[in-house]
Order: sequence, then structure tokens, then C-alpha cells
Amino acid sequence: MVFTSDFVLEDRHFTLATHTPAAIGEKALARSLSDLAAMGAEPVFCLVSLAIPAKLGEVFVAGFYKGLLRTANRYKVSLAGGDLARFEQVIADVMCCGRVPRGKALLRSGAKGGQGIFVTGKLGAAAHAFAAGQPILPVARLEAGMALRKLGAASAIDLSDGLSLDLARVCEQSNVGAEIFSASLPLARQATLDEALHGGEDYELLFTAAAKIKVPARIGKLAITEIGVITRGKPGVVLMDGQPLQSKGFDHFA
Amino acid sequence: MVFTSDFVLEDRHFTLATHTPAAIGEKALARSLSDLAAMGAEPVFCLVSLAIPAKLGEVFVAGFYKGLLRTANRYKVSLAGGDLARFEQVIADVMCCGRVPRGKALLRSGAKGGQGIFVTGKLGAAAHAFAAGQPILPVARLEAGMALRKLGAASAIDLSDGLSLDLARVCEQSNVGAEIFSASLPLARQATLDEALHGGEDYELLFTAAAKIKVPARIGKLAITEIGVITRGKPGVVLMDGQPLQSKGFDHFA
Repeated sequence: MVFTSDFVLEDRHFTLATHTPAAIGEKALARSLSDLAAMGAEPVFCLVSLAIPAKLGEVFVAGFYKGLLRTANRYKVSLAGGDLARFEQVIADVMCCGRVPRGKALLRSGAKGGQGIFVTGKLGAAAHAFAAGQPILPVARLEAGMALRKLGAASAIDLSDGLSLDLARVCEQSNVGAEIFSASLPLARQATLDEALHGGEDYELLFTAAAKIKVPARIGKLAITEIGVITRGKPGVVLMDGQPLQSKGFDHFA
Repeated sequence: MVFTSDFVLEDRHFTLATHTPAAIGEKALARSLSDLAAMGAEPVFCLVSLAIPAKLGEVFVAGFYKGLLRTANRYKVSLAGGDLARFEQVIADVMCCGRVPRGKALLRSGAKGGQGIFVTGKLGAAAHAFAAGQPILPVARLEAGMALRKLGAASAIDLSDGLSLDLARVCEQSNVGAEIFSASLPLARQATLDEALHGGEDYELLFTAAAKIKVPARIGKLAITEIGVITRGKPGVVLMDGQPLQSKGFDHFA
């Protein structure tokens, strides 16, 4: 059993002006499920803690849970309970429990020099939609995560804060460097390179795998793209096309 | 397996002026463990989500976890993980997982007419300490909860928001009435009747048990006091000495 826990906070992860209550509920659960996906875990159940201001009331709560339960159905995870409280701003904390064979969970610390670096799907879609004022439906790549674990991927992370920052995290925790190639990045339609590199909230998976592992071109309908290689370079440093890449993603604890 | 989840929110459950970081950590875990105690569950592990303002930094985090881990040791529960985020105010959400035989968890909905109403320990201590500006160490009556489950108690709740409000909750959820007797209430030293009735944060257990159950005078060193009886009166209504008792406890969602 593995557990993930993720806050979704007003004016940090959403605003009441840009997100409906249902969208906040969807996002709260999807973020936490995405952490399970990055471990290669199968979701079992979730717990929800929600605090809202008095002025929002039951309509907000009903909308939030409608969105959350829709997402729970989509990913076949059950809601096991929760807590409701009052606060000046909306805060949600979703804990997810997942199943993974003992010792087999994918970690951020498993990358080693010589491994290929891969991503699922397209990058920059969320940042581009955000810039264009369009709503996005957050995803959680649970099937891909489980498939990658079975395939023998060495490390994984979900791209919640942007490729540049999340890849640097893998490098730091694995004590390795990385080099990626801009021409290889699978840009989402209309997304810029900057959005693909530094835009958060894509929730695609980034993973590394040894050269001997045969990584498929897709998992189900989801494309897999090789974008670079783990190096024995300076730990934590990511190069792009030979130049140091700044981590400009969104660090929730910066 | 049962799960509890409880927010501890700045300016609602504590203030930075009255609580040290360690006291906030202690309280966050104890509140959630107290919910397990009320179910008669044995704690297994906990998960912690913490968000703090940028200005507080690592010293706050270290203090918070020092207090939380001290409490975790005291109650022999392990910390399985957590999340750290930034927010304008301090918020903590502690999820606890406990073990209880299937179908045996004590519920708020198990009270029936004719059952005795009992409380553990003394009442009003927290409210009195708060009024006097003294720190209190929150408790979680885990041993008592497990003993009460084995004894065959019919319902239980932890007194987090005050006797008057928490007993009314049991009555509502069990569709029964209740009558308590002021002369029977075990007042904490120096506490007033009002503090014992309406002061929150005592975290003692209130439970009901059928007349045929022999309820002991103490569980370990903890005194048990019979304070009244469940009636077939108006559902949700609590009488004290024959008069309706107002629910003046602290309703976090009022």
C-alpha cells in the first residue's frame, strides 16, 4: 500500500473566478491520483478534507463533490470518507491509497547515468489553455504508470510543476544529471517551447529506463516520446541542447 | 481498516500567538487520533499535510514535526508520509488509519432508548485552561476506545466540540433523545458547569451502553462516569435536569 496526499489551495492552485466548484473537486482528486500514477500504483480509495468559507455553503460542497465523484468514477477509485470544516479560503486535501507490489513502487530516486528519459503524451497543453483562458480537465496517467512499472522503468515523476523543475527533482534525488533535446519534445497543439518546458499542470509522466528496456511507442492510445538521457554530469543539473536549463516551473514551496 | 481526517486551521483551532509550532503538531495528530479512539480503533499510521506561509520557514516545520512525532511516539502510531505546501495561513490535515474488526467500529448512530450515557475522565479542563491562558496537552483516549468496543458499548463520540453539541450529534444520528443530570457531571478541577457542558477540546469519550452491560468504574487509570440516559424523546433533543439543553459547543461548520 502506498499513500499520497495533496493540497489544492485557493489562489494558489485555482481561483473561484476561473474554476467552478466541480472543476476544483476534479482537480483535487486528479492531482492526488497523478502522484499514485507516478509510483505505478493502482488506486484503491481516497479520503477528502474540505474547508470552505461560510458564504459558499452547500451549493459549493455539492458542486465540489459532483466533480470529485465524476473523477473517482472515471478512475475507478472509491471515496472512503472525509472531513468538512470552515475556513476563510477554500482548501482541499485529498489522500489517496494505492496498491503496488512490495518494493516495486516507481521512485524519483531511481535514475542512473545512461538511462533514456521519456514522457507520456504532449507537453504544454495546460499552460497554453491557461494562457488562453480555457478550462482544462486534469488527467492522471494511472494505466501508463502501472504499465511502466511492469515494464521495468527505473524512476518516474508526474509533471505537475513543469518539465524543467520536475526533471531537476528526479536528478537531485537520483544524484545524476540529465540532457534533453528541444527538437524531441512533444509539444501540445499551439503550445510554445516555454510552455512545454516550464508550464505546470500537464500531469503527464516523466520516466527513465535502462537502454536494455524496450520502451513502446505508445501505451494504449498514449504516445511515449524519448526526450533525452540521464548523465553522470553535475547532480541536479539539466542541460538542454548542451546549455543549462533553468528550472522555471512552479515550485509550490519556493 | 478505518480512516479519519481532521483539519487544524490557524485562527480557528489555534493561533500563532497562543500555540508553539510543536503544540500545533501535537494537536493536529491528537485530534485525528481522538476520532479513531471514538471508533474503538487501534491506530496504525498517519499521513500529514501541512501548508505554511513563506515567512515561517523551516524552523516552524521542524517544531511542528517535533510535536507531532512526540505525540506519534506516545500513541505508538507511525508517520507514513505527507505533503508540504505554501499558504497564507497555517493549515494541517492529519489522516489516521486504524484497525478495527469488520463491522465492530463504534458509531455515533448506535444509541437506543434506555441505554446509559457515560463519559471518560473529567470535563471542562480544556475550556478552563484556555480561559486561564494555560497550555493544554490534547489527549486521545485510544485505550479506552478499544476497551469500550470490546465491552460492547453501543455508540461513541469524542468530545471535541463540547458535551452539549457532541451528545446532540449522537442523538440526531441515532434518532433518539437524551437526558443528563448536572449533579452527575465529572467537572475538572476549577472548571465551571458551563465549561464542562459547552467547552470543546476535552477529547474525552462519550459513549452509551445497554443496561445489561457492566460498565467498569475505570478503564486503566481513567474514571468512567454515568451522566444520564438515552430516551425515546424527541430525536436530537438533550434534556438536562428535565429542561432542554442548548447546544452551545463549537460547531466547526455552523
